[in-house]
Amino acid sequence: MTGWLDALERLAGSRAKAGLTRQLRPRPAGDEVVDLAGNDYLGLSVHPAVVAGSAAALHAYGLGATGSRLVRGSTSAHAELEASLAEWLGAPSALVFSSGYLANVAAVRGVTAVCDLIVSDAYNHASLIDGCKISGTSTVVAPHNSPAGVAAILDAHPDRPAVVVTESVFSVDGDLAPLRALHEVTSARGALLLVDDAHALGLLGPAGAGAVAAAGLAGRPDVIVTATLSKSLGGAGGVVAGPAQFIDHLVDTGRTFIYDTALPPAVAGGVAAAVRIARSADDRRALVRARGAQIVRRLAAAGFQVRPPAAGVLSVPAPGPEAAVAWAADCRDRGVAVGCFRPPSTPDGSSRLRLTLNAGVTDDAFAHALDVIVECAP
Amino acid sequence: MTGWLDALERLAGSRAKAGLTRQLRPRPAGDEVVDLAGNDYLGLSVHPAVVAGSAAALHAYGLGATGSRLVRGSTSAHAELEASLAEWLGAPSALVFSSGYLANVAAVRGVTAVCDLIVSDAYNHASLIDGCKISGTSTVVAPHNSPAGVAAILDAHPDRPAVVVTESVFSVDGDLAPLRALHEVTSARGALLLVDDAHALGLLGPAGAGAVAAAGLAGRPDVIVTATLSKSLGGAGGVVAGPAQFIDHLVDTGRTFIYDTALPPAVAGGVAAAVRIARSADDRRALVRARGAQIVRRLAAAGFQVRPPAAGVLSVPAPGPEAAVAWAADCRDRGVAVGCFRPPSTPDGSSRLRLTLNAGVTDDAFAHALDVIVECAP
Ligand SMILES: Cc1ncc(COP(=O)(O)O)c(C=O)c1O
Ligand SMILES: Cc1ncc(COP(=O)(O)O)c(C=O)c1O
Repeated sequence: MTGWLDALERLAGSRAKAGLTRQLRPRPAGDEVVDLAGNDYLGLSVHPAVVAGSAAALHAYGLGATGSRLVRGSTSAHAELEASLAEWLGAPSALVFSSGYLANVAAVRGVTAVCDLIVSDAYNHASLIDGCKISGTSTVVAPHNSPAGVAAILDAHPDRPAVVVTESVFSVDGDLAPLRALHEVTSARGALLLVDDAHALGLLGPAGAGAVAAAGLAGRPDVIVTATLSKSLGGAGGVVAGPAQFIDHLVDTGRTFIYDTALPPAVAGGVAAAVRIARSADDRRALVRARGAQIVRRLAAAGFQVRPPAAGVLSVPAPGPEAAVAWAADCRDRGVAVGCFRPPSTPDGSSRLRLTLNAGVTDDAFAHALDVIVECAP
Repeated sequence: MTGWLDALERLAGSRAKAGLTRQLRPRPAGDEVVDLAGNDYLGLSVHPAVVAGSAAALHAYGLGATGSRLVRGSTSAHAELEASLAEWLGAPSALVFSSGYLANVAAVRGVTAVCDLIVSDAYNHASLIDGCKISGTSTVVAPHNSPAGVAAILDAHPDRPAVVVTESVFSVDGDLAPLRALHEVTSARGALLLVDDAHALGLLGPAGAGAVAAAGLAGRPDVIVTATLSKSLGGAGGVVAGPAQFIDHLVDTGRTFIYDTALPPAVAGGVAAAVRIARSADDRRALVRARGAQIVRRLAAAGFQVRPPAAGVLSVPAPGPEAAVAWAADCRDRGVAVGCFRPPSTPDGSSRLRLTLNAGVTDDAFAHALDVIVECAP
């Protein structure tokens, strides 16, 4: 049966026609590219203390965790990281996963043990959507960032224990969810609020504790927080933080926790160092905020209306997928990495550049990158 | 709304009554425990060359990949690892994921772009089952390791392009799927065969290339192979190997590929070193085989009938979940780590010890561990 290869080629042909073919472009170590594409918001992936923390755990434990968390995978490095994440986030308990993706799947599926309705923001990340699907629980998609829309859905199902699922800072456009208003809606109706704080952790809130902390919702018994350790913390892995009873529930029943090899201890060790740095990195956070204002001014002067970023992500509309690809390619050819988001990665089907802020980029390199982006515009 | 915490506590109470509460027991670095629980079959997680390969990439790139593979996450370390995995597995192309879990989800969902029936072995791993669920494609569960059962299902749906999904060495009992017979069934009916080679890679086949290679099926255009990099290779991450058209399809459309931060370059670098070692580790493979025979003899002499392991996993029946937990705890107290598998981790609802072989364990420690297991038996 090789007919399937022909079928795959036909599908590839349709994607090519629609300008939706993707290409992997491996980068060498130490390339001189200015990074306005990644999620290393605080520049910690290359911080000497992060690298040293990772190297120390690597030499102490070896590379892999050698098993799932419940078999051989839990090390002191995991336990220490979980304790420090819980403290930072102001949550009673925290559980580390091998990725933010699997953490989100576990959190969403886990909460449906006690909820039989999910209300999911229209722009939610693929991992949250997959969590909804895998849970098999009925899911209503709410209009983006609309507490009134969420309230209407909850009010239409008054007798069903529900959870409202949202990102805090959305991953494509970088806009902030109205967390306080959403929590008013959920708490007034006895619903839970699950927030993916992936793009706010390290950047917003007191000591960078995230958007949930910034909204005064840290540690609330009706709030679950998830995040990835791969963005501001410069590493990899994911975390779910919340009431101890919920974390225990995930340890006992979370399929993506139980049936998955633990995060390498060396990654846990590096991320633990990153947490320590991130908590006192107000200087880096101030730099990211200043850069956000600078980028909006520079692009506005060139005729692009972009929304000021809530944290470290913003997006610039492009006329179409091919134009977005060409724009990003021209920037790359001139040494500036920018994100190019096309369907299905954009919630509204449009195409755009996605720019990210990185405190590790020098002022000169950043100013130069803005020039390049403007000069390469279609 | 804190009623949900009461509901979670009630659920926890039922699990406790059924003996199904799980506990994380973090291990310190350098503990002297004899590991018959993890999946570090070749002992490579602590191999100096693996640690050195990882450290080199850590210092070259920093800790995190800083983005998804399509944004900033692809490094030369990923590309080199993919090339060496494809060559080793005898596959036209290979794609690395951040975990075996997410690789499996991508492979199963990906193949349903051209298949509208999944035939899934009854004992398949959670990640394969989740892939089936997330794909939304109709799935028929086949009796365990039964080519005739698979044939009957395919024959009942003669007009539907189908994929048969199986593990090679099953993760709980360590038995081997009849891959050649399954392939005869699928190829005669124009169906595809997707094999999760997680527990055979590094142990079976020429140069440890896995059970698919051992069955003479490497590189077949109607076979897809997945594996994790966290077992014999001592690291973390996952891989899908198969025809280039399928890999391209996953790059363009695989949600768990596109929307997930790449494996840390330091992990890719360490695993690449592990691949080089694994390919020429016939001595370690011979040791694992000899240990498998030794364990069966020793347990048989003590009155336990256990099946000889096909690779590095075997299981010993226990009278019930509490007995299994107590048995494992007694072993642990005497310095021997063994796996304890209870529902829902066992396909048939029974409880057992799961023992694994590890070429890094010394002969003396291994013989001692067998004594301990027998002495602690309920
Ligand atoms: C909002 C959001 N949630 C979750 C994830 C997944 O986290 P990870 O990359 O650690 O799997 C991402 C991106 O990667 C994200 O942007
Ligand atoms: C058969 C099988 N497939 C897939 C996986 C998942 O791989 P990973 O741990 O890398 O997520 C595992 C175990 O972890 C497994 O046993």
